[in-house]
Amino acid sequence: MILINIGDELLIGQVVNTNAAFVGRQFSAAGFELTEVITIGDSGDAIRAALEEAFRKTDTVIMTGGLGPTKDDITKKVVCDLFRRELVMDEGVLKHVTEIFAARGMSLTDTNREQALVPAGCTVLPNMLGTAPGLWLEEEGKVLVMLPGVPFEMERLLNEEVLPRLKKRDTQHHAIIYKVLQCTNITESGLSDLLEPYEQQLPSEFKLAYLPVPGIIRLRLTAQGDDKERLAIQLDEQFAKLKEAVGTYAFTDEDLPMEAVVGQLLVRVNGKVATAESCTGGRIANLITSVPGSSRYFEGAMVSYSNEVKRDLLNVREDNLKRRGAVSEEVVSDMALNTMGLFDVDYAVATSGIAGPDGGTEQKPVGTVWIAVATPVRLTTHEFHFGSRTGRAQIVERAAHAALNMLRIEIEKDLK
Amino acid sequence: MILINIGDELLIGQVVNTNAAFVGRQFSAAGFELTEVITIGDSGDAIRAALEEAFRKTDTVIMTGGLGPTKDDITKKVVCDLFRRELVMDEGVLKHVTEIFAARGMSLTDTNREQALVPAGCTVLPNMLGTAPGLWLEEEGKVLVMLPGVPFEMERLLNEEVLPRLKKRDTQHHAIIYKVLQCTNITESGLSDLLEPYEQQLPSEFKLAYLPVPGIIRLRLTAQGDDKERLAIQLDEQFAKLKEAVGTYAFTDEDLPMEAVVGQLLVRVNGKVATAESCTGGRIANLITSVPGSSRYFEGAMVSYSNEVKRDLLNVREDNLKRRGAVSEEVVSDMALNTMGLFDVDYAVATSGIAGPDGGTEQKPVGTVWIAVATPVRLTTHEFHFGSRTGRAQIVERAAHAALNMLRIEIEKDLK
Repeated sequence: MILINIGDELLIGQVVNTNAAFVGRQFSAAGFELTEVITIGDSGDAIRAALEEAFRKTDTVIMTGGLGPTKDDITKKVVCDLFRRELVMDEGVLKHVTEIFAARGMSLTDTNREQALVPAGCTVLPNMLGTAPGLWLEEEGKVLVMLPGVPFEMERLLNEEVLPRLKKRDTQHHAIIYKVLQCTNITESGLSDLLEPYEQQLPSEFKLAYLPVPGIIRLRLTAQGDDKERLAIQLDEQFAKLKEAVGTYAFTDEDLPMEAVVGQLLVRVNGKVATAESCTGGRIANLITSVPGSSRYFEGAMVSYSNEVKRDLLNVREDNLKRRGAVSEEVVSDMALNTMGLFDVDYAVATSGIAGPDGGTEQKPVGTVWIAVATPVRLTTHEFHFGSRTGRAQIVERAAHAALNMLRIEIEKDLK
Repeated sequence: MILINIGDELLIGQVVNTNAAFVGRQFSAAGFELTEVITIGDSGDAIRAALEEAFRKTDTVIMTGGLGPTKDDITKKVVCDLFRRELVMDEGVLKHVTEIFAARGMSLTDTNREQALVPAGCTVLPNMLGTAPGLWLEEEGKVLVMLPGVPFEMERLLNEEVLPRLKKRDTQHHAIIYKVLQCTNITESGLSDLLEPYEQQLPSEFKLAYLPVPGIIRLRLTAQGDDKERLAIQLDEQFAKLKEAVGTYAFTDEDLPMEAVVGQLLVRVNGKVATAESCTGGRIANLITSVPGSSRYFEGAMVSYSNEVKRDLLNVREDNLKRRGAVSEEVVSDMALNTMGLFDVDYAVATSGIAGPDGGTEQKPVGTVWIAVATPVRLTTHEFHFGSRTGRAQIVERAAHAALNMLRIEIEKDLK
């Protein structure tokens, strides 16, 4: 299967293509293989060429984008041209669009009415969250699915309309299954050397991929084949061998981001957490609360960007701020320890660093970040250097993940 | 120019392809046109097919990924095969890799040494931030650039090594320039109707695109041509007409995200801001602090996820929490007003809502968010409904942007 994402905004980088990642995730979870993603602009010629090329390689193509009400949206016209169909008014879609506008107290314009035009013979996939419907076109064993480019509209249509239809159509499809082992405290090449004997014995239907994210290497073991049940048994066997080979560098075999791993640990120890953030500016809190149900263990955060807030609201000692500077072991220690009492929690995480691009000095270059984790019985601190040329967003991201990893290690100590 | 991104992790959606957006942004700023992005997996056949296809359409191809030290990285071998070259050891790269390992107190393994193998005749683009170098291969007027997939390594190499070389090579390239006008308080189709006469008079070398983001529609006016100077004058003229046609729906003609627009306004009024966040969990603070120099106007944030923190640290009245519930006009008003004094700021933003997937009721379904903005002389509150099926991350994102937009409106009142 091939995915085509349409939009000038994707090519000039105004918008990051999160739709491709979403489709990839849902497809791989459902056992479908996405072999290629093609991103092109809002040009009729490019859409036509991409469609022709894609159908030479596969019989199922998903397209996103190009279905909106404005002039730069031309997908439907190209599809009609290519499949020699007329655009016809779909009364169901027209009714839906009219109702959406009525609910907002607005009447329909000609532009809005065009949203209800569909290539003849298409199955309309109702879009409850917007005006542009999804469209399913089937011809001579080929399937073309057109979805709106707005992420949450596309996501709902894919899950509720497209995937069930694809599964129904393709009862005996090729199975792709995988498991993930997450490792830390080892470099990618170190892990690669360690796993050389393991990789040499891997049967050819298996593939091991190394996916480094800040502070972590995710190992993904994938198996492909036709007999799904046999494959699952083999995957379990090979995954057990992998875990043995990796040893203590592995910290979880769940395919979850670090914030969810930490969340599960907090539930297990029945602990509560709060953060005190300077350079990470709320990113750790943002990651923790991205996990559904995090209100069970997350109390809150104090983002103390200025020295005044550090002193007045987090009771950081003036003396430490003056003598050691805001980016120092003493200040993050004060921040973490005082957060324990302020938020009445079992674990507190504090960060203070220089995210750049300005503010670095010779002693403390951009990328220097101090992180502290406090528990009722321990205070752990660590100085990180994420590199002065790494970029502001990347430094914040690495610091937030390093802090979550330090928190994970502290909670695990309490489980032993 | 065509970009090829290699990585199974991109196709199965484990990783979002931010590299494509970065390359697109840098290319379009430099006047180069990216016509297509092809994403494929770590398969020799797929890489070969994508390269052949790309070079049929263009003479410049950028590839990212597939250059790491582990077994799933095969780009260099495919390129050697396709361009009939040998892999040769590059002494400069070997020295660099050896030094990186020595600095970490580690010695080189065979796997690490392979990082220094490059296709014969390539120009090595030194990677100061990692072990895999960039590679520049030129043959019969065609250029193939291979870059590592790790974002910050790729980003530095693109800016410092690749773009200067491309500019030098292509002195008279086709110019693409654009301007952005950001609008609010109008729907995409409403704006499209309003701009129909404007679009009809647009010369064919111009293109107007509608890019909706939460609460905002970004209009991008693009011009393409060979005479860059003439084009710039025409773009200014057409952009002035566009601003006139859009009228008061436009709020900025700078191509900046909302958090940077708000930051500029805060600098202009010399005002300070703090946030009190419940459902947004620090996302507003995270957005505000993503702007370099935000420490000039951002004091901090109180992420009050639990009712206890709302009561004890933000002095939200117990009575309001009990009678009205945490998601209510009364509670966000308390949060915003008390944040003013607590952080000693001129503007305070507060959010409280139900991000889901659980916690909704009939009166307050998932997606209900109350937002308050306090200034020394005004308190503004608004209830939003972002939809119960929108998804947790999307609700947080929309709420954070709606809050920033409310803040923008309040600061602009103070400018009048």
